[in-house]
Amino acid sequence: MALIIQKYGGSSVADADKIKNVALRIAKAKAEGNNVVAVVSAMGDTTDELIHLAQQISEYPEEREFDVLLSTGEVISSTLLAMALGNLGCKAVSLTGAQAGIHTDSNYNRARILRVNTERIISELNKDNVVIVAGFQGVTSNMDITTLGRGGSDTTAVALAAGLSADMCQIYTDVEGIYTADPRLVPHTSKLDRIGYEEMLEMASYGAKVIHPRAVELGELYNVPILVASSFSDTPGTIICKEASMDMEVKNKVTGIAHDTNVAKITVVGIPDRPGVAMTIFEPLARANISVDTIVQNASTEKITDLTFTVTQDDLYKAMSIVEPVANSIGGKQCVADSTLAKVSIIGSGMQNTPGYAARMFHALSEQSINIQLITTSEIRITCIISRDSVKDAVQVLHRAFELESV
Amino acid sequence: MALIIQKYGGSSVADADKIKNVALRIAKAKAEGNNVVAVVSAMGDTTDELIHLAQQISEYPEEREFDVLLSTGEVISSTLLAMALGNLGCKAVSLTGAQAGIHTDSNYNRARILRVNTERIISELNKDNVVIVAGFQGVTSNMDITTLGRGGSDTTAVALAAGLSADMCQIYTDVEGIYTADPRLVPHTSKLDRIGYEEMLEMASYGAKVIHPRAVELGELYNVPILVASSFSDTPGTIICKEASMDMEVKNKVTGIAHDTNVAKITVVGIPDRPGVAMTIFEPLARANISVDTIVQNASTEKITDLTFTVTQDDLYKAMSIVEPVANSIGGKQCVADSTLAKVSIIGSGMQNTPGYAARMFHALSEQSINIQLITTSEIRITCIISRDSVKDAVQVLHRAFELESV
Repeated sequence: MALIIQKYGGSSVADADKIKNVALRIAKAKAEGNNVVAVVSAMGDTTDELIHLAQQISEYPEEREFDVLLSTGEVISSTLLAMALGNLGCKAVSLTGAQAGIHTDSNYNRARILRVNTERIISELNKDNVVIVAGFQGVTSNMDITTLGRGGSDTTAVALAAGLSADMCQIYTDVEGIYTADPRLVPHTSKLDRIGYEEMLEMASYGAKVIHPRAVELGELYNVPILVASSFSDTPGTIICKEASMDMEVKNKVTGIAHDTNVAKITVVGIPDRPGVAMTIFEPLARANISVDTIVQNASTEKITDLTFTVTQDDLYKAMSIVEPVANSIGGKQCVADSTLAKVSIIGSGMQNTPGYAARMFHALSEQSINIQLITTSEIRITCIISRDSVKDAVQVLHRAFELESV
Repeated sequence: MALIIQKYGGSSVADADKIKNVALRIAKAKAEGNNVVAVVSAMGDTTDELIHLAQQISEYPEEREFDVLLSTGEVISSTLLAMALGNLGCKAVSLTGAQAGIHTDSNYNRARILRVNTERIISELNKDNVVIVAGFQGVTSNMDITTLGRGGSDTTAVALAAGLSADMCQIYTDVEGIYTADPRLVPHTSKLDRIGYEEMLEMASYGAKVIHPRAVELGELYNVPILVASSFSDTPGTIICKEASMDMEVKNKVTGIAHDTNVAKITVVGIPDRPGVAMTIFEPLARANISVDTIVQNASTEKITDLTFTVTQDDLYKAMSIVEPVANSIGGKQCVADSTLAKVSIIGSGMQNTPGYAARMFHALSEQSINIQLITTSEIRITCIISRDSVKDAVQVLHRAFELESV
């Protein structure tokens, strides 16, 4: 008897009919002889409604209270799904994050799972129950409720799959899998059958918002195969696993094209080129919890240099307000912000071991007269920062250049 | 430093502005040097909305799941109230029923509080926090969430007052206290300054829907003084306590007039008058959790008798479907239902020790040509079952007859 963890996102449980549809899918998996643990997100816009409620009360709601408030969204959908299963004659029990043994640190709003105490879930599975777990939440050692941040239900599902040594973790969502590029931008994308964890991480971080990166990291750490598929169809999805199939490696080392339009750039002009300057600038940003992505420091002329880095568009205003006084204090001439940028990336495991991919990428972009502002690479990714206006053209030309079009 | 338990009902926390208003009241009590634990109900119609959600999923939702679903309403309002207090600079922390240590049996939908583990609340009070507790809910020994039934937040508040040996339990609602009769029916009612637990129990059970009877019972058991007052004004309310003030006893042994229009009558005609018959009829009703109120058995003629009893109007259909086959099986001729009834009661401690109250009541009703169908009494109450059409007249005439009008 296989143990399957399924996760259903907010759009899959948005209303009573959709919840009943999900119940049918779970009951089918159960009837096929599997043990099933299903993790659910909050129904449709519930989380946004709860946030709106909090905002009516307080501009800066206390984080601990905010987490308890948000956690109710997933509790509601978990009970409704259990009721829908009961209605189908399929025994089911809902568990809150605390009841399901999801233990986290006490970083409210973005708690990390420390361990999963699977005792209660196993006891319910032994009673032949389908177990529905409220996603996105956990509990501290002091029994305080925490949430895992947006996309946290994915993390709950993979953590449970790891803790329970499940055979498979299935993430059901409103797309049919992982594509070679965003189908809204590129006409002839192909759905991938399989993708490696690392490749998926690069795809997800760089804008393919199908599964949360932390869930993929956790899947890689515990070697949990993750299926991403649609909850509205029976089309086979994409499996994220240890390595992509070999023939794909041989045929084409680029797996997909990712893009991200939530990018802004800050350039600090004319700062001294001496040890400790980078620290002076980036430490206050880290303390403010602002992620800095690409960092480029120009070649120094007369011990004066320019420092350029990117942050998300969302963080730009906050980042500027932190960086400007710091830059002034160390003699910087000015801070320049550019909020009209985007990233395009080519992603493929092993790319780095084969020469020529970067050249092919730059060539393709230049043929479309797309100017590259910054370049950053990892072992399995090459990213160019370009003007946001050119994103669609860039993704399309790269999709063609690396022969990713479906036939 | 006094410890005060406050309870705010659904209408007192119906929207963001009302929650902010409640926060101001709590902050005031705290600033006056009290430790405060506040119990909240769900916002306005939240509970009804959650019930509606469940009904869209399943006609007979599983009780355990239903309780988890309903419990989220109070969790939401508790976090919002804690945020509102934080916004006023008043340190506050919300606790779910489970976190607050409200331990219950596992009778879902109508769980009884078994014990209160006050450890966490005391630790929060010691940190100078106002503690906001989600009312209406508790947790079983298996960590499953239960609800206490409608009006359960009152019970939570009084149980906490008992467990914490609080100086006072204050129930804030949308009325200003307990009146000598329903002010909607009688023009010149008086608000009572004090009322005994037993009197209040009779008032509450018989239709004064201000505080839940179980909360009053618990208050009596642990001798917790309970203030009932309005959350929308600063008018002094009514204190429910061990005994009413002595001068009131002397002046007038009738404290108030209660009425209840949720009454139906079933008469089983022509059943054998032998041992075991009553048991045959009432046992299945008890198993179906139907409360039977007044029971009257007519004088037997030729070992055949009629049995009349009342149930709530809500239970009438269900009760008839149970009683009819049972009555047939023991040779009963027919079952007659009457759903157009009401109760009026005069209530006052010590009434029974003083003759003449019943006569005065029957006299007043007969002068208004109101027919009495059934009579039932307790030590401190005389109740007449009358036609529902006559309720208003009956309450008014009794209010006058026992000189309860305000001057």
